[in-house]
Amino acid sequence: MSFVVEDNDVDIVIAALWPDLTALFEGWRPIFSRFHIIIIKDYDLEADLHIPPGFDHHIYTKSDIERVVGSTSINFSGHSCRYFGYLISSKKYVVSIDADCLPARDDEGRPIDAISQHIINLKTPATPFFFNTLYDPFREGTDFVRGYPFSLRTGVECVLSCGLWLNAADFDVPTQAVKPHEKNTRYVDAVLTVPLRTFMPVSGINIGFNRHVLGPVMLPAMRLDGEGKQRWGTMDDIWCGMCAKVVCDHLGLGAKTGMPYVWRVGGGNAWESLKKEWKGVKLMEEIVPFFQSVKLPRTVATAEDCVIQIAAMVRGRLGPVDEVFSRAADAMEEWLRIWKRVGSQGR
Amino acid sequence: MSFVVEDNDVDIVIAALWPDLTALFEGWRPIFSRFHIIIIKDYDLEADLHIPPGFDHHIYTKSDIERVVGSTSINFSGHSCRYFGYLISSKKYVVSIDADCLPARDDEGRPIDAISQHIINLKTPATPFFFNTLYDPFREGTDFVRGYPFSLRTGVECVLSCGLWLNAADFDVPTQAVKPHEKNTRYVDAVLTVPLRTFMPVSGINIGFNRHVLGPVMLPAMRLDGEGKQRWGTMDDIWCGMCAKVVCDHLGLGAKTGMPYVWRVGGGNAWESLKKEWKGVKLMEEIVPFFQSVKLPRTVATAEDCVIQIAAMVRGRLGPVDEVFSRAADAMEEWLRIWKRVGSQGR
Repeated sequence: MSFVVEDNDVDIVIAALWPDLTALFEGWRPIFSRFHIIIIKDYDLEADLHIPPGFDHHIYTKSDIERVVGSTSINFSGHSCRYFGYLISSKKYVVSIDADCLPARDDEGRPIDAISQHIINLKTPATPFFFNTLYDPFREGTDFVRGYPFSLRTGVECVLSCGLWLNAADFDVPTQAVKPHEKNTRYVDAVLTVPLRTFMPVSGINIGFNRHVLGPVMLPAMRLDGEGKQRWGTMDDIWCGMCAKVVCDHLGLGAKTGMPYVWRVGGGNAWESLKKEWKGVKLMEEIVPFFQSVKLPRTVATAEDCVIQIAAMVRGRLGPVDEVFSRAADAMEEWLRIWKRVGSQGR
Repeated sequence: MSFVVEDNDVDIVIAALWPDLTALFEGWRPIFSRFHIIIIKDYDLEADLHIPPGFDHHIYTKSDIERVVGSTSINFSGHSCRYFGYLISSKKYVVSIDADCLPARDDEGRPIDAISQHIINLKTPATPFFFNTLYDPFREGTDFVRGYPFSLRTGVECVLSCGLWLNAADFDVPTQAVKPHEKNTRYVDAVLTVPLRTFMPVSGINIGFNRHVLGPVMLPAMRLDGEGKQRWGTMDDIWCGMCAKVVCDHLGLGAKTGMPYVWRVGGGNAWESLKKEWKGVKLMEEIVPFFQSVKLPRTVATAEDCVIQIAAMVRGRLGPVDEVFSRAADAMEEWLRIWKRVGSQGR
C-alpha cells in the first residue's frame, strides 16, 4: 500500500530550547523543506534563533503566546512550548520532533523520512482489538496472520503515531544516571498497533497525530516543579499519552508505536538531575493505575468531552494524593477553553 | 543478560507428517544435536521415518499413543500428533517446530539457535501490565523507557514463547490462495510481551512453553472435520493459544511473541483447500469475542482448574452455536484426565 503524503496537510512543530538550529535544519533539509514548519521559542530563550535559509517556517515567541492565549496558568516554557504550536497549527496532521534529533539513516546512508512514515501510520488503519503477530498488516509485503478474524480486518482510524529513537534512548533520571553510556542501537523494523486497554509511556520526542481529532487531548497539563528543559525530567508527554490512549480506546480510534526512528543526539548530565527529587518516578506509580481504571460514560462522544471527564476524575481521585494532579486537572480544563477559542479554528 | 540453557530441561517435539526428515535434521544439526528430541509419527503415516544419525531422539507411533492414552475420542492425527509429545515429555520446557522449517540464518550465514531464544524468552520475565516501547527490557542493550513504573519492572514469569517465520508466512486459506507467492521477508529484531487482555492467533509452527505450568492447557481440542495436515486448515494451535492467554492473564503469567524466527519452507496448494468450506475462518468470529469475554473466578488458582472452567463455558456458550465447540469442550476435559494420569508425572 503506498500513499501520497499531501504536504499541505502537515505541520512540523519544533520546540526551540537553544538558539542554533542549523544542525537540525541542515540534517533534515531534504525532508523538512517540503513542509510548513512551526517553531516555538522557549519562554526563557532570549537570543535570536539561527535557522538556515530555504525553509517555509514561522517562529512564535513568548509575545505571540501571550497575545493569542492571554492570561493563563499553563506553563509553556521548556519542552512544553511546543503545545502552542499544536494550538496554532491549522493542519490535519502535526508531527513534532525534538531539536536534538536528526534523521536516522538507511543502509545506504540516506536520511529516513520520518514525516512520511508518521503520515503513513496515521493514514492506514490501526487494529487495536486483536494482535497481529506479523505486526502492521497494512504494510507492503505483510498481511493478517491465520486466525485473525475477517470482521476485525478493516480496523479503525489511527490518530496517534509514536516514533522511536536510535542512539540516545529515552530513559528516566535514575536509569540515565546508572547507564550514561547505554545507546539504543537496535533498529526494529516494525510498526504495531497498541492494543485496546494497553497503556505505554508515550514519548514526545518523535510523534505524529491527527490534530483534528486529538488536538484537544495533546495538552501541557502535567508539570513538575522546575522541570521541562531535559526530557528525563519531563512528564507532560507521558501524561498526554495516557490521556490520548483513554480517548482512543473510548472513541474506537487507534494508536501505533514503532517506526519511524530518528537519530537522537541527546547529551547532558543526568547526574545533575539526580540531585533533585525524582518526583516523576514516584508519580507514575499513581498515574498508571489511575488511567488503567478510567471508564468514560458511553454518552461521551468527542475528544473534548473525554478531556472534561478525565480532568474531573483526576481532580477527584488523584488530587488528594498530590497537588500536582490538581494543577494538571486545572490545566486540562484551561486547555479546553483555549482550544475551543483558538485551536479549533483550523478544523 | 545472558543465560545458560540447561539442555536437560528441554524437549524438542517434532510432528512427522512425512517420512523423510533428513533435511530437517541436517539443517538443524548443530542446534538439535544438543537436545533430546521427541518425534511423533502421524497416525496415517505408514512408511518408516528417515532420520540421520547423531541425534538423541525417540520416535513414538500410533501404537505408543494407543498404549499410553488408551481409548480416546481425541484425534492425534496430522499436526495434532505433537500433543502426544507434549504429554509424554518429562521436561520443564518444550519447544515444537514444524518439520518444514529450517533455521533462519544470520548475516554471516550461521543458523540461528531458535531453541535457545525460546528458552531465554521463557527464563526472562514478561511485562504484561504496561507496554515498553523499547520492546523486551530484559534483552542486552535494552531497558525500560522513561515513565515505566518501577513497581512493574520485575515483571511476571513467562510461560509461552511464540516464534515467527521467514519465507512462507502463516496465512489462512483465502489469503494463501489470493497471495500464493507472498513471502515474509521482514526480520523484526524484537521480542515483546503480549499485553494483559490482548489476544492474538498463536501459531503452533514455532513455539516454546513451560510445560510444568502450561502442559494442561496445550491441548488438541479444536479440530475441524477432515483437516489437520495443512497448517492453513488447522485451528488446534490457535485454540490452544486463546486458552493459554486466558490462563496467563488469570494466573498472572506472561506470553511473548516475536523472535526466534525459523525459515519456513512451506509449500502445497491452498487452492485445493479453497474447494472445502473455510470453516475455521467463520469460527474465529465466534472464538475471539468468546475468549475476550471469559472471566474466571478468583478461586481458580491452577492451569488445570482454568481449563475445567473454560471447557464448561465453551460447552454452555459456544456449544449451541456449532457442534465443533461441544467436541472441543469434551476434548479439553478428556485431555485433563489424560494429563493427570500421564503428563503430570514428569513434574
